[in-house]
Amino acid sequence: MQKSRLQTGMLRWLWTVLSSGMLAIPFAASPVGAQLLDFPKERLADYSEANPFDRLADGRPKVPENLIRQARELSAEEIWAVLEEKGYQNQYADGFRILHPDQPMVGRAFTVQFMPMRPDVDQVAQAKAKERGLGPLHNQTAIDMLQPGDVTVVDLFGTTVGGTIGGNNLCYYGMTATRSGGLVVDGSIRDLDGISEIAMPAYFKDVDPTPIGNVMLTGINVPVRIGGATVMPGDLVVGDREGVYFIPPQLVKEVLDRADEIRVHDEWTKKKFAEGKYKSSEIYGSPKDPKLKEEYQAYLKRRLEEIRKRRSTGQDK
Amino acid sequence: MQKSRLQTGMLRWLWTVLSSGMLAIPFAASPVGAQLLDFPKERLADYSEANPFDRLADGRPKVPENLIRQARELSAEEIWAVLEEKGYQNQYADGFRILHPDQPMVGRAFTVQFMPMRPDVDQVAQAKAKERGLGPLHNQTAIDMLQPGDVTVVDLFGTTVGGTIGGNNLCYYGMTATRSGGLVVDGSIRDLDGISEIAMPAYFKDVDPTPIGNVMLTGINVPVRIGGATVMPGDLVVGDREGVYFIPPQLVKEVLDRADEIRVHDEWTKKKFAEGKYKSSEIYGSPKDPKLKEEYQAYLKRRLEEIRKRRSTGQDK
Amino acid sequence: MQKSRLQTGMLRWLWTVLSSGMLAIPFAASPVGAQLLDFPKERLADYSEANPFDRLADGRPKVPENLIRQARELSAEEIWAVLEEKGYQNQYADGFRILHPDQPMVGRAFTVQFMPMRPDVDQVAQAKAKERGLGPLHNQTAIDMLQPGDVTVVDLFGTTVGGTIGGNNLCYYGMTATRSGGLVVDGSIRDLDGISEIAMPAYFKDVDPTPIGNVMLTGINVPVRIGGATVMPGDLVVGDREGVYFIPPQLVKEVLDRADEIRVHDEWTKKKFAEGKYKSSEIYGSPKDPKLKEEYQAYLKRRLEEIRKRRSTGQDK
Amino acid sequence: MQKSRLQTGMLRWLWTVLSSGMLAIPFAASPVGAQLLDFPKERLADYSEANPFDRLADGRPKVPENLIRQARELSAEEIWAVLEEKGYQNQYADGFRILHPDQPMVGRAFTVQFMPMRPDVDQVAQAKAKERGLGPLHNQTAIDMLQPGDVTVVDLFGTTVGGTIGGNNLCYYGMTATRSGGLVVDGSIRDLDGISEIAMPAYFKDVDPTPIGNVMLTGINVPVRIGGATVMPGDLVVGDREGVYFIPPQLVKEVLDRADEIRVHDEWTKKKFAEGKYKSSEIYGSPKDPKLKEEYQAYLKRRLEEIRKRRSTGQDK
Amino acid sequence: MQKSRLQTGMLRWLWTVLSSGMLAIPFAASPVGAQLLDFPKERLADYSEANPFDRLADGRPKVPENLIRQARELSAEEIWAVLEEKGYQNQYADGFRILHPDQPMVGRAFTVQFMPMRPDVDQVAQAKAKERGLGPLHNQTAIDMLQPGDVTVVDLFGTTVGGTIGGNNLCYYGMTATRSGGLVVDGSIRDLDGISEIAMPAYFKDVDPTPIGNVMLTGINVPVRIGGATVMPGDLVVGDREGVYFIPPQLVKEVLDRADEIRVHDEWTKKKFAEGKYKSSEIYGSPKDPKLKEEYQAYLKRRLEEIRKRRSTGQDK
Amino acid sequence: MQKSRLQTGMLRWLWTVLSSGMLAIPFAASPVGAQLLDFPKERLADYSEANPFDRLADGRPKVPENLIRQARELSAEEIWAVLEEKGYQNQYADGFRILHPDQPMVGRAFTVQFMPMRPDVDQVAQAKAKERGLGPLHNQTAIDMLQPGDVTVVDLFGTTVGGTIGGNNLCYYGMTATRSGGLVVDGSIRDLDGISEIAMPAYFKDVDPTPIGNVMLTGINVPVRIGGATVMPGDLVVGDREGVYFIPPQLVKEVLDRADEIRVHDEWTKKKFAEGKYKSSEIYGSPKDPKLKEEYQAYLKRRLEEIRKRRSTGQDK
Repeated sequence: MQKSRLQTGMLRWLWTVLSSGMLAIPFAASPVGAQLLDFPKERLADYSEANPFDRLADGRPKVPENLIRQARELSAEEIWAVLEEKGYQNQYADGFRILHPDQPMVGRAFTVQFMPMRPDVDQVAQAKAKERGLGPLHNQTAIDMLQPGDVTVVDLFGTTVGGTIGGNNLCYYGMTATRSGGLVVDGSIRDLDGISEIAMPAYFKDVDPTPIGNVMLTGINVPVRIGGATVMPGDLVVGDREGVYFIPPQLVKEVLDRADEIRVHDEWTKKKFAEGKYKSSEIYGSPKDPKLKEEYQAYLKRRLEEIRKRRSTGQDK
Repeated sequence: MQKSRLQTGMLRWLWTVLSSGMLAIPFAASPVGAQLLDFPKERLADYSEANPFDRLADGRPKVPENLIRQARELSAEEIWAVLEEKGYQNQYADGFRILHPDQPMVGRAFTVQFMPMRPDVDQVAQAKAKERGLGPLHNQTAIDMLQPGDVTVVDLFGTTVGGTIGGNNLCYYGMTATRSGGLVVDGSIRDLDGISEIAMPAYFKDVDPTPIGNVMLTGINVPVRIGGATVMPGDLVVGDREGVYFIPPQLVKEVLDRADEIRVHDEWTKKKFAEGKYKSSEIYGSPKDPKLKEEYQAYLKRRLEEIRKRRSTGQDK
Repeated sequence: MQKSRLQTGMLRWLWTVLSSGMLAIPFAASPVGAQLLDFPKERLADYSEANPFDRLADGRPKVPENLIRQARELSAEEIWAVLEEKGYQNQYADGFRILHPDQPMVGRAFTVQFMPMRPDVDQVAQAKAKERGLGPLHNQTAIDMLQPGDVTVVDLFGTTVGGTIGGNNLCYYGMTATRSGGLVVDGSIRDLDGISEIAMPAYFKDVDPTPIGNVMLTGINVPVRIGGATVMPGDLVVGDREGVYFIPPQLVKEVLDRADEIRVHDEWTKKKFAEGKYKSSEIYGSPKDPKLKEEYQAYLKRRLEEIRKRRSTGQDK
Repeated sequence: MQKSRLQTGMLRWLWTVLSSGMLAIPFAASPVGAQLLDFPKERLADYSEANPFDRLADGRPKVPENLIRQARELSAEEIWAVLEEKGYQNQYADGFRILHPDQPMVGRAFTVQFMPMRPDVDQVAQAKAKERGLGPLHNQTAIDMLQPGDVTVVDLFGTTVGGTIGGNNLCYYGMTATRSGGLVVDGSIRDLDGISEIAMPAYFKDVDPTPIGNVMLTGINVPVRIGGATVMPGDLVVGDREGVYFIPPQLVKEVLDRADEIRVHDEWTKKKFAEGKYKSSEIYGSPKDPKLKEEYQAYLKRRLEEIRKRRSTGQDK
Repeated sequence: MQKSRLQTGMLRWLWTVLSSGMLAIPFAASPVGAQLLDFPKERLADYSEANPFDRLADGRPKVPENLIRQARELSAEEIWAVLEEKGYQNQYADGFRILHPDQPMVGRAFTVQFMPMRPDVDQVAQAKAKERGLGPLHNQTAIDMLQPGDVTVVDLFGTTVGGTIGGNNLCYYGMTATRSGGLVVDGSIRDLDGISEIAMPAYFKDVDPTPIGNVMLTGINVPVRIGGATVMPGDLVVGDREGVYFIPPQLVKEVLDRADEIRVHDEWTKKKFAEGKYKSSEIYGSPKDPKLKEEYQAYLKRRLEEIRKRRSTGQDK
Repeated sequence: MQKSRLQTGMLRWLWTVLSSGMLAIPFAASPVGAQLLDFPKERLADYSEANPFDRLADGRPKVPENLIRQARELSAEEIWAVLEEKGYQNQYADGFRILHPDQPMVGRAFTVQFMPMRPDVDQVAQAKAKERGLGPLHNQTAIDMLQPGDVTVVDLFGTTVGGTIGGNNLCYYGMTATRSGGLVVDGSIRDLDGISEIAMPAYFKDVDPTPIGNVMLTGINVPVRIGGATVMPGDLVVGDREGVYFIPPQLVKEVLDRADEIRVHDEWTKKKFAEGKYKSSEIYGSPKDPKLKEEYQAYLKRRLEEIRKRRSTGQDK
């Protein structure tokens, strides 16, 4: 639009700056606990006991920065390979409109749950919040708790009218607080025109001009359901132009390693196809001819070494 | 079908016997707490503090038997009048297939929540259950806790394949345990042919031959969302051929009283219309002519007295 | 439901009494003209100039009583034959929930149009209505103008919430005013439980507990669109368990005559099939064997004579 | 409707007569082969080599009469048990409107395939048909080949307008020719009012007043896809109020035997539940207490013996 | 596509030229009145009496050029703020495919209504048109009446096949006649490839290769319904990448003023967020800290002055 | 995404190289015949007897290279003109997601059919394949048979999960084997991120991370149905940003000639509109003024000559 917009250049600049973590917003240290559903740190620890990494102050598993960076190259298909094998068939959600389809989304799940407004329940929750010196419980209560590297994962049960987690102001705030982490809403956003300028990946079901309404905040960092997936706080969220994966922390390393192999495999397979000498079934899934198989194995070994070396020496983007 | 079925006569007999509460199944006294989401008795008490009635052993508000009986005459439209006025716009769900559209469903909400299966979370829950001497956590864990007067309200997030809370055996058990209370599933049932013989109201989204699968039990008597409604354990559930209302206990009395007025109002209005002397707007919503208004007020007063007298002397069905 | 309902016996009685036209409600003689869209008598006369019958006081073509009675035997398939041949491909609508699928609906279209509420327009319309000494413009304005033999055809643009033309009181009024004519709503009704007792055919898209709201009455007896059909005031409306036809008055006689032939044809065809001596293609659409063809022609002639004689002597139901 | 209909009594009579096979229509012995897709007897024999029964003259497996009779008691859930176990996950289709939900449908699949009309292809097919002395290729070509015990399974690729396999005449013919076998259409029927009187089970996606059109007959007794199921000519088709199963002939006996066990299991389980002494998980799926297990095993053995004896002595209905 | 297309450069040139109003097509001065629905100038004046601006020759309110220019910066969210407050909840429609999502659409509503073809009605209308010396009534009848600054708003009731208001020729004509005003169709367009080169905003539900057919033109500049919105001729139509607003003329000024405030508010809010010192709830909706509030008020005052000054001196784009 | 991708430059290079046919992959000469449905060369020849061109070795009509090149300029609307006139109303399919909307797709239909997996049938087919020395029957069996200029047309009956014809490796192979011919799937693809880099047009219903599964290959170069279209092997497939046409070979020349006329017509019409002197109905469909008509005829003649000359001298792109 011919609007007084942030320059495209600024958009790019923001993307870069935010990713490199130069801003410093103070973040809310203590969980509120006033909302209807409670999932205390201990309970989260119990149910995510397989987590191999440190934890954030709020108890969520903390997938390390370098793995998050490496995960920016993942695609849905690469993740599927490991998750399916391990029996995790439900960690994928799709059917989203995607704000920036050319930008990957990677970060730690910060979950937020809303339910349809019910005055008796909401009154109790608001009273509890007040008791604890908190302001009114609403979408900003959760948004104010976001941390760098978070992807906000919001259950607004697919609502369009009134199911809008935020518009350009709150998305801008989310962008600064999470360092462009990302947003996944089973619900809507408002002000698509304004949000298009925000340098943060966003996945949403719909768009509507109404602000959020007729719902109540019922959970922060509780387990939530997004489409057919169960999301735990701290899961590694990865979005590409296809959909969104929620990867349990204990599987992150294996997914990344396997992805390296898949990418080398695809590289070699295409090289062979480009030679124009083989039928697809002679080469793919794996080469039929023992010699070719050997050639492939050698290629795989060499390329993996290169990739890992480059990565360890930080030459990797 | 020309099958070896329970006699239709037996079906009627069951309906009668069960409603009058002659059976006595022992019921599980202690909540399990092993499932992912926990909503302890104290928390339920906090969030349902407006409840004017006693509570069941598991902490749920106990809408009294006589009000449940009286509520069998309610229709969706009558309930709407009070709930809308009080600001409860979201306590209604529809879009169900209804097993016995001619039979009302009334009872206390016993809520059950499932989420998509996720092996790491389920393993922890099963281990916790075992620790506490419980069998495997699954649909029967919840079904075994049902009590007379309960309506089982199940969140299976609208799933068809694998989203079947039960077939004819478990529904039969539910019928005996709840004394034909009822079943509301945002999901499916299996074995429609078999279930058609069960003398218990049931509302479900779909039917499928597969048994329940690829889901995990995550909550018993926790707050659940059914369509656009937030359901609290102990809500009065009322279903007619239109849909299902979840009435907060503190509003039950007022709903029932208002319904009496509405029914007398409709009775009088139709009488007037049947005389063929008036336009609809002269009589409905309320009579324009002051004399008619007076006539109506007198009629209302007399009829309400009759109704309440009959009710209090137990002549009421 | 086990409610204090009108007796089923009374329901049947009403159906009979109303069909035989014993009640006499005074009806509004003058069209209002205050609503947004106006379609005066002269304009209606112009655009329905092919009408071969008298007209009602409000200008609508008046398909005669005896043809309406005869039309109660029509099915959608029989009507299709003539309408398709004459180039009327769009006079059919389906996708309705049907209140009494076993009862046919036949009557003269009384059309009502609503549009989404828009305060500036509605204010002008209400002021105009007041000027003319009319009460507030709303659904009852139209309902009060209904006449015996009318089928109310309502464009509520497929709305569910707030798109409810009426509940059990207004439907009861409609039943008495139209002598059980009927109701077709591209929208909803409320109070399905209450309406199930009303002895009037009704076709609606959905059911909801909310009363009509967020819409404004914009036309009475104006041309309306119902699904893919253009309906003119005075069209003969015929509903069976399949859907609803809106027959232009000038085609009614031909449709009825053709239907007699179709029914005799079906009668003979089935007789032949029941003999078990022929393949379907030897008999249907028309007999291949010249002798059989002759036999059929004779049968058709005889049966049509019988049918028409019986009809003319009033032995016909 | 108040129409001059076949008496309900006659409907019942037909149902009985037709099931007992007293009529004798000559049937087309030779397959046509003119239609686009050809699936000759030898090919059918190859691809159904596991069939343990005789074959019909047209090459289809002939599931015997007594098993068809026995299969009238099957429900979708009972069939699922064996098919799932054997790796047949796709033999079920649902989403149909069901003409007589209280009547089971059982018979041998007679498949018919249509594709969207394409003049160049249809011309060739019609010319080939003429060459072979056949009349025009259309729906009646297939219908004329129906035999007692057949269920016509029609792929009209879900079409409504023009996707109507037939109306009351052809359905009546189908009823007489198949002895009330049945009809499954992934498409529509026309004349629902007329068809309601036909004593033959029918499953269809929709209803429309238009006759079949804009399609061409492309296959008779070729493999077809109905929803997510692959149907082979001669499969045992079983429909209940839930949906339709297409059972490969080689699995029929096992399905029937297992169903007996399931029914005894359900009988015993419900008896136990009715005693009111057990939790559901103590009894169902199988009794936990070894003594109860033993009791059950004895009960199962005795009841199966009774059932099979009754069946073999023909006392079975 | 690699087609012989208008140069992209030419596309841009057209956009510029057309917006600056250099072309001069003569336009039809007199409304036709032959179509089924009539809404004469006087009636339009009555129902849009709140219009504060001049009127066009055809009676439509004429929102002035400078406000139209200013409105090119509006987004759906900004419009919502005023409309919701004034009780206009229904002036928004979405669910469109958008031809040029990066170009705003702003103009005066020129409404066109079609209904399903019905030969008797169409014959009368065509005869009336002929009588008045008009050519055949069809889509071009309306298109020929378009004026600079118009957005054509077409009710084709969501039809795809045959519901195509035009292809690349008529859209090109519309572009020249309206000076790139715009097009909103509750229906379809044809020739998406060709239309992609047209420098005019367009919102449509679907695309189909068929030309318009099986419909009749029933109204020009009559009130129409687009989705859930009532559109009056002369409404200000504003489309962004989210959807389309139809703004009553009397609210245009207030919407534009409020939008200025909202944009300054967003500007300031984001500045503060970018500082990284505040939680979202400290700043947004309005600053909690009185000092910040004061700072904001001063900023707002200053920026509004700047904006309005720039606008009045014509420095505004 | 910030991934190690093929360079965009390489993508463009590939597109060019592949279109110019420099690679040479050996292709499978013999049809397999093991799959369930067989459509031998002779049968194809019979049913495509109107084909005016040579045939490929596999029996498919071979629309010549120069016509394929010329067809790259076709749009859906231009094709519609001839097909509709000739009575081919069903040769169009839409509702696809389009990989490269700015690139046209043109080629010869290579059809592939899958049906839901059914173990008994699949076992026979696999055994037959083995007998003939073929590897396992699956998607690669068909993909290995692709030839330059082919568009793969796949019936996966609209399946998403498991209905993925391939990911980036097989699409890359398809690109090299068909020289960027194209892909139409009534089903899904996987790995959208990876496939976005493939220089081959692709039309698919959905995207999913799962590999192909729970289906069996049932036909190669058999007639298939894609949406409402019947596709014959060898049809000319043309896709634009609107949808896909399947043109019978005998109509290709006429479609191309007519398209030239349509394009000249549009060119002239727009020129006239750009002059700003005419109403749309004066010029379009054809000029009303005899002088203008003459002018147009002369223009058409001249331009067609130019176009055809340029084409014959190969100056045409």
